[in-house]
Amino acid sequence: MIQVYTGNGKGKTTAAIGQAIRAIGQGFRVLMIQFMKGDKSYGEIIAAKNIPNFEIRQFGLPTFVKKGEPSPEDIRLAKEGLAFAQKVIAENKYQMIILDEINVAIDYGLIKLTEVCELVKNCPDSIELVLTGRYAPKELIDLADLVSEIKEIKHPYTKGYVSRQGIDY
Amino acid sequence: MIQVYTGNGKGKTTAAIGQAIRAIGQGFRVLMIQFMKGDKSYGEIIAAKNIPNFEIRQFGLPTFVKKGEPSPEDIRLAKEGLAFAQKVIAENKYQMIILDEINVAIDYGLIKLTEVCELVKNCPDSIELVLTGRYAPKELIDLADLVSEIKEIKHPYTKGYVSRQGIDY
Repeated sequence: MIQVYTGNGKGKTTAAIGQAIRAIGQGFRVLMIQFMKGDKSYGEIIAAKNIPNFEIRQFGLPTFVKKGEPSPEDIRLAKEGLAFAQKVIAENKYQMIILDEINVAIDYGLIKLTEVCELVKNCPDSIELVLTGRYAPKELIDLADLVSEIKEIKHPYTKGYVSRQGIDY
Repeated sequence: MIQVYTGNGKGKTTAAIGQAIRAIGQGFRVLMIQFMKGDKSYGEIIAAKNIPNFEIRQFGLPTFVKKGEPSPEDIRLAKEGLAFAQKVIAENKYQMIILDEINVAIDYGLIKLTEVCELVKNCPDSIELVLTGRYAPKELIDLADLVSEIKEIKHPYTKGYVSRQGIDY
């Protein structure tokens, strides 16, 4: 099945990681492909090294992509991530594949919606495909079996709040 | 800080588990206390055994609690879970404590809202406290620093759908 976690609130990537952990406990092999992320100091990157059957591959620079002004390297890496996703889906080695922030990669114009729709349509039933990121396009919501929108009700974006190690990364 | 994941969509418990994994990667010790759950065959219970610094303790029966008709054992276990949470918060051994489904335990009348509010107010800043479950009461939302509402946009509750191993448990 196809799952989508979207919306403006905290919890999309973590929901996918938690879904991965649950699946791993039941014997799944899980791959998370991260778009637009290249920072190796994320807690989940460090933790995954010690969790059997959980691989995370990053296809992005450690710096943020500027909306409207992606660098050629941002685009190259996102396309490489999509090609890698197509390859691993075809190989059918993983029972769950998470495409983290793929919705944002589409929204920012790094990869094409039509190509992601093709990938989703061609994904065999034996693979649980999980897509995350704000701005999930209607076409992907229509293709998905399960969609959760994570809405921000409250966030400590008050004066002096900086992202916190272990919580935000 | 205090985080709350509520709403009717899939992703609340998994967001908390993903948050735990991220925190563990950054050196946190994490405890998840599960209310109203007693089934040891959940994927996260099995997986956590192999993840250092991640403990999950269940305070519930393996069967569902009937709303309006909780058994004395349901109530006893939930109260025990709350007392255990109070104890571990006071001990300050964990940097993150997740109270999974505690909102539902309050809504079902197993534990008192006033007692949970006291626990939240008394939690030291050194502990990240994460509360999950539908029906988060306004009082807890007011006390929280971060609240995400996970809304169901689409769920495959169609004919013949049964909960799936590795996905729903």
